[in-house]
Amino acid sequence: MRTLDVALGERAYTIQVGAGLLGRSDLLLPLLKLPQVAIVTNTTVAPLYLAKLAAPLRAAGVQVLEVVLPDGEQYKNAATLNRIYDALLENRCERAATVIALGGGVIGDLAGFAAATYQRGVSFIQVPTTLLAQVDSSVGGKTGINHPLGKNMIGAFYQPRTVLADTETLNTLPERELRAGLAEVIKYGLIRDLPFLEWIEGHLDELLARKADALTYAIERSCANKAEIVALDETECGVRALLNLGHTFGHAIEAGMGYGSWLHGEAVAAGTVMAAELSRRMGSLTEVDVKRVVDLLRRTGLPVAGPPLGAERYLALMALDKKVSAGKLRLVLLDGIGRGVIRADTNLNDVRATIEACCHV
Amino acid sequence: MRTLDVALGERAYTIQVGAGLLGRSDLLLPLLKLPQVAIVTNTTVAPLYLAKLAAPLRAAGVQVLEVVLPDGEQYKNAATLNRIYDALLENRCERAATVIALGGGVIGDLAGFAAATYQRGVSFIQVPTTLLAQVDSSVGGKTGINHPLGKNMIGAFYQPRTVLADTETLNTLPERELRAGLAEVIKYGLIRDLPFLEWIEGHLDELLARKADALTYAIERSCANKAEIVALDETECGVRALLNLGHTFGHAIEAGMGYGSWLHGEAVAAGTVMAAELSRRMGSLTEVDVKRVVDLLRRTGLPVAGPPLGAERYLALMALDKKVSAGKLRLVLLDGIGRGVIRADTNLNDVRATIEACCHV
Repeated sequence: MRTLDVALGERAYTIQVGAGLLGRSDLLLPLLKLPQVAIVTNTTVAPLYLAKLAAPLRAAGVQVLEVVLPDGEQYKNAATLNRIYDALLENRCERAATVIALGGGVIGDLAGFAAATYQRGVSFIQVPTTLLAQVDSSVGGKTGINHPLGKNMIGAFYQPRTVLADTETLNTLPERELRAGLAEVIKYGLIRDLPFLEWIEGHLDELLARKADALTYAIERSCANKAEIVALDETECGVRALLNLGHTFGHAIEAGMGYGSWLHGEAVAAGTVMAAELSRRMGSLTEVDVKRVVDLLRRTGLPVAGPPLGAERYLALMALDKKVSAGKLRLVLLDGIGRGVIRADTNLNDVRATIEACCHV
Repeated sequence: MRTLDVALGERAYTIQVGAGLLGRSDLLLPLLKLPQVAIVTNTTVAPLYLAKLAAPLRAAGVQVLEVVLPDGEQYKNAATLNRIYDALLENRCERAATVIALGGGVIGDLAGFAAATYQRGVSFIQVPTTLLAQVDSSVGGKTGINHPLGKNMIGAFYQPRTVLADTETLNTLPERELRAGLAEVIKYGLIRDLPFLEWIEGHLDELLARKADALTYAIERSCANKAEIVALDETECGVRALLNLGHTFGHAIEAGMGYGSWLHGEAVAAGTVMAAELSRRMGSLTEVDVKRVVDLLRRTGLPVAGPPLGAERYLALMALDKKVSAGKLRLVLLDGIGRGVIRADTNLNDVRATIEACCHV
């Protein structure tokens, strides 16, 4: 087991990564203010892992409420959030109770936002069961839901009390989701950690074969990179935007194709290629470097081109994105491999040309 | 104009109290990150004060979105909250925009929760137009909505960038609401500020006659008392519970009668009498002191007895209250006038007897 301290002032917490953590109630019990928890999960994860997490807690005398939601990004909305509130209220969960998210990013976002807003905030613990959730949502405290007019438009920054990332839960993860999760792992290398990128290039086969040691290392190092950035910028005003490499283009792909059609990591992979290509057009990345990015993503089995929505549609979809500031399109680009940079001087013609170049079918 | 600094670490802000502040855009403009604000108000307040606040902002080049909601506690719910989200999204309010609450406590709670959760948090400014909102919601950062299963069950702690309390807005306040607001003013004296309580007893007629100087002083001193408590306990784990004097009984009255039937301050007044009576039964308040509490509330024109719901109904309604911890009923009592105390050792028989004694018709 590896542990990582996320230093966020009074809200510091520990991420624990390793095989078999799900049953380790000893890691959770000392954090409970009251022996009352609500485990929020979904219909896919529940039959696989809910009993494994709940049984040792119950054996220790904890009152465990199970809230099992439908599975899918399309349920990350106000109606599903309200199902959690209803369950908490109907079962008289108190302010000193703890909400545990058991599942992927959608469950983490929903359960975290419920925890942030139930009785103005109760304790929250994350048990992410997808690679994406383990390397992304584990750090940063982003929680929230989608709104018909935009993704993640409603939410809160809310830190968990701890995160348990059990690599054994990845054994049941669909291949496509594993690869999508690796898109975010690669991102950390690209924006700020060249040695890690080189390690990924050298250990990609082990990661794809789900070797526990390689996964544990990749998760811990991804979280460490994210934690360093987030500690500098907890509410996303500055350097934290680096984490959005490929995400502005990626969100346009997800929205344009209808949420759930492309996985988030797949859209981010194609978006990262676009960001690399735009960086090249703006003179901060060589053609060789662009090829290196494309090659790694391709080897990972990820898309390296966006869907042909048309440049104008992309631009329209990118305009409502949260990365818009004062009417200017801020984008995360690469200033060499391993060095992300936030630029607000992007030229609309370059962006358009990039989209056209990267979205051939 | 009086100003009061609320010291909450990185989230410190200033409360400005006085006559005619509504038109003082010079107090707001330096706080805007972007010249884009959304003023959230209701159909009662809008015709009286919306133009007064919006016009000078527009004259200064600020883009002002007006979100006018129906008036009433029954609209403090998810559906109305969603109307705010819709308006913000349809008008492309950015993350650097500012939400301004113009109205009473319901508007402050709704707009504040929308600000806390729109794009995971945007700037928030409060312009409270009722006495209750000026002395209560101005400090503490409580925002939220009601849920069919409980009042204020969904919400967040979220601090404003500043508060403008314009005493001129109280000139149009219905008499009944003025008196209800004074219940909270009296509360501050009772729980921790005996000299202020004596000042209120001596200046009650001026307050009821809406003299600007008396109101300004009472608002500023109420906020100062609340700010001191909140600074000690921002997320309501300990001493902040003192602010709930009369509120556990009061919430039971509001819920039992149907929200909106009794004003919050009226329920708090009756609840304060019950808390005083229970304190007497538990030996921490004299009969003379109980009479002093009752006399002041009665002179203010407030109810000094609860509605006859029956003791068992009261107890049932009090059980889901947020003041319940670990199954025990924690109540704020008085240990002498000017000295509130949180007690978890309340005896159910005493509570029952108190309800029966204080709720005769």
